Amino acid sequence: MAEHKRIGILTSGGDCAGLNAVVRAVVRRAVGTYGWEVLGIQQATLGLLANPAKVLSLDIKTVDSWLTAGGTYLGTTNTGNPFAFPMEDGTLRDRSEEIINAYHQLGLNALIGIGGDGSMAILRKLAQQGNWNLVGIPKTIDNDVGITERSIGFDTAVNIATEALDRLHFTAASHSRVMILEVMGRDAGHIAISAGIAGGADIILIPEIPYSIERLCQKLKEWQRRGKNYALIIVAESVPNVDGEHITSTNTAGQCRLGGVGQYLADQICSRNIAETRVTVLGHIQRGGIPSPLDRLTASAFGVAAVDLIAAEQYDQLVTWQNRMVKSEPIANAIAQYHCVDPDGTLIKTARGLGIYLGE
Amino acid sequence: MAEHKRIGILTSGGDCAGLNAVVRAVVRRAVGTYGWEVLGIQQATLGLLANPAKVLSLDIKTVDSWLTAGGTYLGTTNTGNPFAFPMEDGTLRDRSEEIINAYHQLGLNALIGIGGDGSMAILRKLAQQGNWNLVGIPKTIDNDVGITERSIGFDTAVNIATEALDRLHFTAASHSRVMILEVMGRDAGHIAISAGIAGGADIILIPEIPYSIERLCQKLKEWQRRGKNYALIIVAESVPNVDGEHITSTNTAGQCRLGGVGQYLADQICSRNIAETRVTVLGHIQRGGIPSPLDRLTASAFGVAAVDLIAAEQYDQLVTWQNRMVKSEPIANAIAQYHCVDPDGTLIKTARGLGIYLGE
Amino acid sequence: MAEHKRIGILTSGGDCAGLNAVVRAVVRRAVGTYGWEVLGIQQATLGLLANPAKVLSLDIKTVDSWLTAGGTYLGTTNTGNPFAFPMEDGTLRDRSEEIINAYHQLGLNALIGIGGDGSMAILRKLAQQGNWNLVGIPKTIDNDVGITERSIGFDTAVNIATEALDRLHFTAASHSRVMILEVMGRDAGHIAISAGIAGGADIILIPEIPYSIERLCQKLKEWQRRGKNYALIIVAESVPNVDGEHITSTNTAGQCRLGGVGQYLADQICSRNIAETRVTVLGHIQRGGIPSPLDRLTASAFGVAAVDLIAAEQYDQLVTWQNRMVKSEPIANAIAQYHCVDPDGTLIKTARGLGIYLGE
Amino acid sequence: MAEHKRIGILTSGGDCAGLNAVVRAVVRRAVGTYGWEVLGIQQATLGLLANPAKVLSLDIKTVDSWLTAGGTYLGTTNTGNPFAFPMEDGTLRDRSEEIINAYHQLGLNALIGIGGDGSMAILRKLAQQGNWNLVGIPKTIDNDVGITERSIGFDTAVNIATEALDRLHFTAASHSRVMILEVMGRDAGHIAISAGIAGGADIILIPEIPYSIERLCQKLKEWQRRGKNYALIIVAESVPNVDGEHITSTNTAGQCRLGGVGQYLADQICSRNIAETRVTVLGHIQRGGIPSPLDRLTASAFGVAAVDLIAAEQYDQLVTWQNRMVKSEPIANAIAQYHCVDPDGTLIKTARGLGIYLGE
Repeated sequence: MAEHKRIGILTSGGDCAGLNAVVRAVVRRAVGTYGWEVLGIQQATLGLLANPAKVLSLDIKTVDSWLTAGGTYLGTTNTGNPFAFPMEDGTLRDRSEEIINAYHQLGLNALIGIGGDGSMAILRKLAQQGNWNLVGIPKTIDNDVGITERSIGFDTAVNIATEALDRLHFTAASHSRVMILEVMGRDAGHIAISAGIAGGADIILIPEIPYSIERLCQKLKEWQRRGKNYALIIVAESVPNVDGEHITSTNTAGQCRLGGVGQYLADQICSRNIAETRVTVLGHIQRGGIPSPLDRLTASAFGVAAVDLIAAEQYDQLVTWQNRMVKSEPIANAIAQYHCVDPDGTLIKTARGLGIYLGE
Repeated sequence: MAEHKRIGILTSGGDCAGLNAVVRAVVRRAVGTYGWEVLGIQQATLGLLANPAKVLSLDIKTVDSWLTAGGTYLGTTNTGNPFAFPMEDGTLRDRSEEIINAYHQLGLNALIGIGGDGSMAILRKLAQQGNWNLVGIPKTIDNDVGITERSIGFDTAVNIATEALDRLHFTAASHSRVMILEVMGRDAGHIAISAGIAGGADIILIPEIPYSIERLCQKLKEWQRRGKNYALIIVAESVPNVDGEHITSTNTAGQCRLGGVGQYLADQICSRNIAETRVTVLGHIQRGGIPSPLDRLTASAFGVAAVDLIAAEQYDQLVTWQNRMVKSEPIANAIAQYHCVDPDGTLIKTARGLGIYLGE
Repeated sequence: MAEHKRIGILTSGGDCAGLNAVVRAVVRRAVGTYGWEVLGIQQATLGLLANPAKVLSLDIKTVDSWLTAGGTYLGTTNTGNPFAFPMEDGTLRDRSEEIINAYHQLGLNALIGIGGDGSMAILRKLAQQGNWNLVGIPKTIDNDVGITERSIGFDTAVNIATEALDRLHFTAASHSRVMILEVMGRDAGHIAISAGIAGGADIILIPEIPYSIERLCQKLKEWQRRGKNYALIIVAESVPNVDGEHITSTNTAGQCRLGGVGQYLADQICSRNIAETRVTVLGHIQRGGIPSPLDRLTASAFGVAAVDLIAAEQYDQLVTWQNRMVKSEPIANAIAQYHCVDPDGTLIKTARGLGIYLGE
Repeated sequence: MAEHKRIGILTSGGDCAGLNAVVRAVVRRAVGTYGWEVLGIQQATLGLLANPAKVLSLDIKTVDSWLTAGGTYLGTTNTGNPFAFPMEDGTLRDRSEEIINAYHQLGLNALIGIGGDGSMAILRKLAQQGNWNLVGIPKTIDNDVGITERSIGFDTAVNIATEALDRLHFTAASHSRVMILEVMGRDAGHIAISAGIAGGADIILIPEIPYSIERLCQKLKEWQRRGKNYALIIVAESVPNVDGEHITSTNTAGQCRLGGVGQYLADQICSRNIAETRVTVLGHIQRGGIPSPLDRLTASAFGVAAVDLIAAEQYDQLVTWQNRMVKSEPIANAIAQYHCVDPDGTLIKTARGLGIYLGE
């Protein structure tokens, strides 16, 4: 039995389905098996900035219903870089020392950070600088943390986007229309390519492959000539065209503009009189939702494994899913390379093999 | 046993969930019980305009899987008023005579038209003028055909909008944000009020009640002061403000603009620095989807009843659901009054009783 | 504004989806609008029997997440008739006086009881005898409270049973099998008839219509001769055959036997070498589950209306849904007649009209 | 471009979700990309036994809606071993030669067989003996083909079982009951362990770990003493106890007995007066259902890859999913070892780490 510890846990970056299930697993393992204390830190590093720190003491009863709850009860933020924190007067200030100190003031023996690669980089910098014992758990609906085959939240997001395509399919066919579904994925098109294949899209546009609007419209016309009188397009929120231009939706921090690229495609298709076209912007619906069984399973496995790493005093590690097993990797290695959709990988080959048009 | 008949069936106006289930029930009753012929007319009156008419012979085997299929396999159109038909040269022409003749050329004894109040008015005019035997079945995701307690497609649309609110709830709470969901309902707010109550919205804006953006923003601030740091808003696609202005999304025929009123609200809330705000435009996802069990049940009951009306040679009738029973009403009566959300009805009382803000 | 009150609320009888949504609506209306107190009484009348009574003080924050939660957080019991209470020594004792007194000791001005017709009869007897101010809200997955068009929990139960048929349909067809789904409904077949129509069953057996196993098997053989090589049967948990025999599953209080009638049908079909046959016993899955949007809407409307009845000091009333409105009826009238499936009603006509075999 | 080919495809063994999606992908790749012919062979090897063989010519239009359809439109059988075929007179006969000849009479260049390890062994024997060009695709809701990380149908089955637990959780808690869910998995407990973790089960019983009914009941009593007044048990259809006894449900070929082990556990718990207990036998609901997005994605990838193996004339291979990629392995290797739940693997560690009781 490992010696007594007090550990903290926080969720950082955009929320997604399965975060609460990780926290539940951490508490059941740490409190239930090892008899430790677990402190839930609210709103990521903002909770450490607050003085006194905003924390919840988490016991097994508290997290009883957290397995199936979407979002994060601990709250999160995706503003507020500790090293360049936006102050009320408009300046940016380095507040890392305050945050680092809060860890020690709370008497933590270790911290579990759940986040994407951006959050991991920041947390690791804090850990290095402040002598924290850090264990990371990957979550990202974008599936862009490459070292791990699974990240919390991705399966649920793909399910939601696929369901939307299923629904649009019916109405597209009924009205002989082009239906466009805009999904998340600013730098990596994993949601679009996975949901596009699973949901029977005719055209998939992802950040990794520049598209030509002219050739896309020609493809629609060619299909019409062959008797296919409707089409489903799934498009990531930011995709470049072959001339290097990005029309980007910015349904993101600090702004609230929507319908950039989806609306642009619709305008282009309409203006060429190809077909009636409708746009759906799925937005944050992709982040919410009850976690899928797979996300709950992964979340549970990651939570237990993170606590076991702490029990073994193996720090600066990211928990990963590789080859049917939970493993771990040094955080620095794990986030060294951004994970785009592999142009020679199985998903792209599958899409092409099915006759899906990728916009080139 | 009624004498042999050949009947036609068509789906008109915007598609929705449950249309195919109606057709299946009509075929099972007309072919299975009575031994009649059923012709499915494609793309509503456009199928009668085609020469020869575009029709499918429908037998029980054909419609075997139609119970659970969304949209309409017969196709539909919501352009193409027969009395003012848009010609290629840009003019409008009265083509009602061609359409009327097609009914007789097909040797139809009766026609079942599935549509909303607009479609019913047009079909009835054709029937009157052309001596058709018409039976109508109400479908509308807007639930605006007032004589009947149920219309095909409404329950499914409410389910989909509610599910979207459920998902947004998680992410709104996680990030302390205002989430806006824009749903359909140009003239009647039934989807917004029903899904808003069922999905736990904090604010519901419907066409029937003008809102004040100032008071809405004050309400958000008041909630924040009391510690409620996020909010869910559901808004119909076209709602007037107290000054009589409409900011309308026009994700509709002939155009493809989205995010009108939802985006407008977000801009107003953001510009007052109240909270980060995100918009989802649900769009045609509301129309698609596998029909809910209730929509399938209603569709099945309506289809059987419509055939029985024809067997009894009772025409010019709209099938209705009233007081747990399928009944029928003369079409003219049934569509005489447009059915808005009743400001003194149970839904509005319930919303107010729950503390939901209606924007006034 | 009505004068200050302290009201109690309890859930009685079998649990179902939507109970927590009623409680939430009651609290939001009573506390939020009127500023009253609400006490949640745990495990129905068992909570009043406990000394001191087992109650939870319910405020708006407590019930925040109760809209979408299945079951009942207040707990319930379907044992324990207060007038013949099973004691540990095996005797039955009248404990109504203790229960009645608890109401007065708690200082309640009124009590909202959520239950089926059995619970309503008991609660009303207590209210009459003990001078309680009682308002009832109907809940029953069996839909057997006849005065109201909707009861909490029924729509969700039908959805779950229909979804099960949808799934069985695929595997029945793939393997050319007979699939039997056993659902709840001891005395009324509403779930079976509604889900059977909505889910495309070929045979529906309900308590209201005795079936002949011989004719049922002949029907299966007849269909096989005509090329239909699989069938879906939905059967209520207790149905009589034409000889007046009941084969009943008793997945009920105090016992735990399952698969009575479903298994019996399978045995009969197998023993005649008609087809491979498989049985699914849906069991309590029908009671659980996230409430459907319709159940949440009805629950919300009923909760608000019940509080308004108390504000108007109208007691001994059951809240009802009639003709698109929430109304109320004296409890005695409301439960005077048990509500079976009407043999001449729309559902039976629809089932027959679709060619569904009802077993006669 | 590979030379012209005519390929056959069949689905063998128990049906599951995603089979039709494989066929669709095969047709889109083989017909759409390569211009080949595809013949769908009905009811597995029974379709080859029929004279002339029962086959469907499959083009892209035919399979248009097959992506989301559960079961198998080609039909299947899990009786009828070609080497010991049950004849009408009760004898078993070797009919492999007829089957082998049918392949050649149909002029097939290759055959894609979709099945589990049992089907693969039989198909491979036929291929070896009859000089067939065989490519295999793994499907099994039991997830027991060990070489591949994914098999068609497993993800959907886990989703359905998890959803059932989610629903039972509510009603278990409301009534303070023990709820038992019996799921499939005769020799491998993958569904039970995965759904049990994802659905928050308290006890998971799988074939790989013998359980003690005494200790199980003691565990329930211990939880009760600590205030946990309900429990969820998920149990595979056949699990041994520590004395080596199996109580098995035989909802399987040629028989139709249900509720063996689930009912047994309930009887044991009831007879010890521990708690009211209810049983749900999920049965074939696990096989049916719309395939999950993950199953559709895997099915699509496998279908494309199988055709590409044929284009490359690489036969006697099983398509697999390994390390995020579709690969392939010689069939003999791929099925050499039966894949049980690894007692030292991540799933068992996770279950124990969460405090789930495994019955020992």
